Amino acid sequence: MGKNLTKRSEDYSKWYNELVSKADLAENSAVRGCMVIKPYGYAIWEKMQAQLDKMFKETGHENAYFPLFIPKSYLSKEAAHVDGFAKECAVVTHYRLKNAEDGSGVIVDPEAKLEEELIVRPTSETIIWDTYRKWIQSYRDLPILVNQWANVVRWELRTRMFLRTSEFLWQEGHTAHETKEEAIKEAEQMMHVYAEFAETFMGVPVIKGVKTDSERFAGAVETYCIEALMQDGKALQAGTSHFLGQNFAKAFDVKYTTREGKQEHVWATSWGVSTRLMGALIMMHSDDNGLVLPPKLAPIQVVIVPIHKGEEQLDAISERVNPLVKELRSKGISVKFDDRDTYKPGWKFNEYELKGVPLRLAIGMRDMENNTYELARRDTLSKEVVSADGVVERIEGLLDEIQETIYKKAVDYRDSHITEVNNFDEFKELLETKGGFLSAHWDGTTATEDKIKELTKATIRCIPLNFKEENGVCVYSGKPSKQRVLFAKAY
Amino acid sequence: MGKNLTKRSEDYSKWYNELVSKADLAENSAVRGCMVIKPYGYAIWEKMQAQLDKMFKETGHENAYFPLFIPKSYLSKEAAHVDGFAKECAVVTHYRLKNAEDGSGVIVDPEAKLEEELIVRPTSETIIWDTYRKWIQSYRDLPILVNQWANVVRWELRTRMFLRTSEFLWQEGHTAHETKEEAIKEAEQMMHVYAEFAETFMGVPVIKGVKTDSERFAGAVETYCIEALMQDGKALQAGTSHFLGQNFAKAFDVKYTTREGKQEHVWATSWGVSTRLMGALIMMHSDDNGLVLPPKLAPIQVVIVPIHKGEEQLDAISERVNPLVKELRSKGISVKFDDRDTYKPGWKFNEYELKGVPLRLAIGMRDMENNTYELARRDTLSKEVVSADGVVERIEGLLDEIQETIYKKAVDYRDSHITEVNNFDEFKELLETKGGFLSAHWDGTTATEDKIKELTKATIRCIPLNFKEENGVCVYSGKPSKQRVLFAKAY
Ligand SMILES: [Zn+2]
Ligand SMILES: [Zn+2]
Repeated sequence: MGKNLTKRSEDYSKWYNELVSKADLAENSAVRGCMVIKPYGYAIWEKMQAQLDKMFKETGHENAYFPLFIPKSYLSKEAAHVDGFAKECAVVTHYRLKNAEDGSGVIVDPEAKLEEELIVRPTSETIIWDTYRKWIQSYRDLPILVNQWANVVRWELRTRMFLRTSEFLWQEGHTAHETKEEAIKEAEQMMHVYAEFAETFMGVPVIKGVKTDSERFAGAVETYCIEALMQDGKALQAGTSHFLGQNFAKAFDVKYTTREGKQEHVWATSWGVSTRLMGALIMMHSDDNGLVLPPKLAPIQVVIVPIHKGEEQLDAISERVNPLVKELRSKGISVKFDDRDTYKPGWKFNEYELKGVPLRLAIGMRDMENNTYELARRDTLSKEVVSADGVVERIEGLLDEIQETIYKKAVDYRDSHITEVNNFDEFKELLETKGGFLSAHWDGTTATEDKIKELTKATIRCIPLNFKEENGVCVYSGKPSKQRVLFAKAY
Repeated sequence: MGKNLTKRSEDYSKWYNELVSKADLAENSAVRGCMVIKPYGYAIWEKMQAQLDKMFKETGHENAYFPLFIPKSYLSKEAAHVDGFAKECAVVTHYRLKNAEDGSGVIVDPEAKLEEELIVRPTSETIIWDTYRKWIQSYRDLPILVNQWANVVRWELRTRMFLRTSEFLWQEGHTAHETKEEAIKEAEQMMHVYAEFAETFMGVPVIKGVKTDSERFAGAVETYCIEALMQDGKALQAGTSHFLGQNFAKAFDVKYTTREGKQEHVWATSWGVSTRLMGALIMMHSDDNGLVLPPKLAPIQVVIVPIHKGEEQLDAISERVNPLVKELRSKGISVKFDDRDTYKPGWKFNEYELKGVPLRLAIGMRDMENNTYELARRDTLSKEVVSADGVVERIEGLLDEIQETIYKKAVDYRDSHITEVNNFDEFKELLETKGGFLSAHWDGTTATEDKIKELTKATIRCIPLNFKEENGVCVYSGKPSKQRVLFAKAY
């Protein structure tokens, strides 16, 4: 059949771009750096959203919506924040167009200049904390546990679909608390929620940790993160959760009356995941034949393809298939019976393989006679002939099995790509040959971190949370260190 | 108790603004014309979204996502469209800020000027049809039935929360078809879907019709609409569905190979409803005590308030209430047991009345002895004492009854406010005294329509679809007419 898909071993990056395009997930738009998320890609994102939203609500959060635009002066109110986000942003300066006098089209009306420019939100801490000032008077108003699903814009010079785009979709949680302890607990909780989502639903194993000073969110005291490892040995940050201390409460003067009647600044967190998760999902499990999707997030879990000549055979097949479709749907399984006559079975097999549908059922005239189906797994590409009698149970069992199998495969890959390194020559060599996470001692300085990045392009992905204390010496500077950290090249 | 809510009869407009604010639905933000949708308001919008999304999918539509930004030149490609939308829009001219040299904050970096300005989408026909050109080659690629949930911006000088804001949330469907007939059928279908949603879920009766030339969507051949009538006698356009002909296909050069092998331009529709529906929902049923929500869209359908002294009594009440809560939830009823000690029962009664919770259950020590609850309906404010044994069935029955009752009340109001008018003096008088829809003959010219608007502020809300043909003379010009149309002052 041939999908004309570049092999991963040939050019991983090209393979990814082709896959995104050929599997109908997304495409570039006329606006530099902004993508169109196509219906099939969006259907996966909707499944991710629905599950995340459920988990946010189960942990007590509510959704709300804040303005797209942020007054320019707001960005300056938190010193670290403006350095991180003012650099690359979309600036609205005018609010009207008018017809060009030469009839050539429309031009910006110079008389419609805004007094203060508006920034298209790159993240919403500033506008939200400006709002929270009005919502919070006393401890009775706390905690505020709010999430927003929204689009944000960060002007990127080098973009890649899903992984780095100027506009992207995300959720951003913004919470307000009475105490430091409660805020830290919240930030940690959301890191765990993200990890559970990544592992249980996306089948993507992650390492939990905290960021170093230089990789921390602009305005945060601590950034918790989950880091995944892609098939090419590069790391991908899949989600972050920030303990913001009182930085934004101070910048926007948000105080509350404590239980003891004092005035205190409020404690904050923020946390987010984005359509970047789509990039991780695509890269994690897919192969040279196309996408491989975890059953829990696949828009179509089972596709049924009839193999027939003429209308009469199709009618007979449909009569057998329709009750099966109904039964699968009643069990919450998403199934598509592709009885289109405009495409041949071989074309369809190819198409659903490319699109990563976990299970494919084929049924021809011999299957009709034998009361069977041919069942094909997308992840292993293996096939089996099953009796129509037990097919529903077999499908249910296989969907669970595929979810587990692809997760375990990803765990194995990840575990075999965390390598302890104790000297810098080895560090550099392993980074180029094996890739993955390099577990190495680091002296704790930004200077060393920068130097290693400059020499190798590897950054500290995180200081893992559950690593043991261990005395050692920094892999670069030779200075003393108490814990290993994880280095990697990253997306 | 007193909500300090202005009475509708005193100042309807002030009542609305206070209600939006006091019921925690939304508030103004620091950005002119942009609102913050608060968690309680957003929870209602989420319920509306979920139901609409279900109805769109049941009619074969899929969701996708297109860029926030539209290149300025795109707007000019469809002549009528640019006239309608270029006037008031947010224009992005730069993509970077930098530190001011005097240290006063950040300024726009003059070197980061975009070659072509970007418009924040006021609606997405142009960027979407630019994309469809790549998706459509042959009739096999049609129809395309796509919807997008998104934020849009139209720079408004006079804004009102939910009803008219510079940024608002909406869905916009954009479909592409082989034939004119199929596209018209689609546009009509979506008008019917909107009407069904408004009536069955929002409890808002609507009149279906088409817009006149001057009220039509910029770029449409025909605009179908649903029009509702608010309690103050003003009409509100609740949704529109446009048959776009081949206008956008021609502007963006989107052709397909027909079944006969010819090249033809594609036929289009677009359709949308927005957070404006929230305004209609709020105004339709609410009263001087606060919000009245239809049970099908209420975030909390039943609230249970304990009346007790001390922990021991609360424990006893909780023991009785907890299994009820569980049973109601198992039936899909959204219930809140408000056992907070920080607020008194009277405060809570007031709060949930203001927030429009359809049913309130109160339980005190006497109810404990008698095995009863006090059940209060929000719509009629009537109370009854019910046995705990049959309370679940009673609640289920009442939720249905409330949904029906408020809809019928709205239908009665609407029906008694459609008045046939046959001369212009009567027209002017009725508009000021009774309001509502005035059903009058019109000569079909924009000149007459404009003149009537100038003299009375009334516009033609629609040419109703199911009105009978009837010969008459125009209420203003005296020229011949074949059908009555509906005039009203409108939001
Ligand atoms: Zn302060
Ligand atoms: Zn053309």
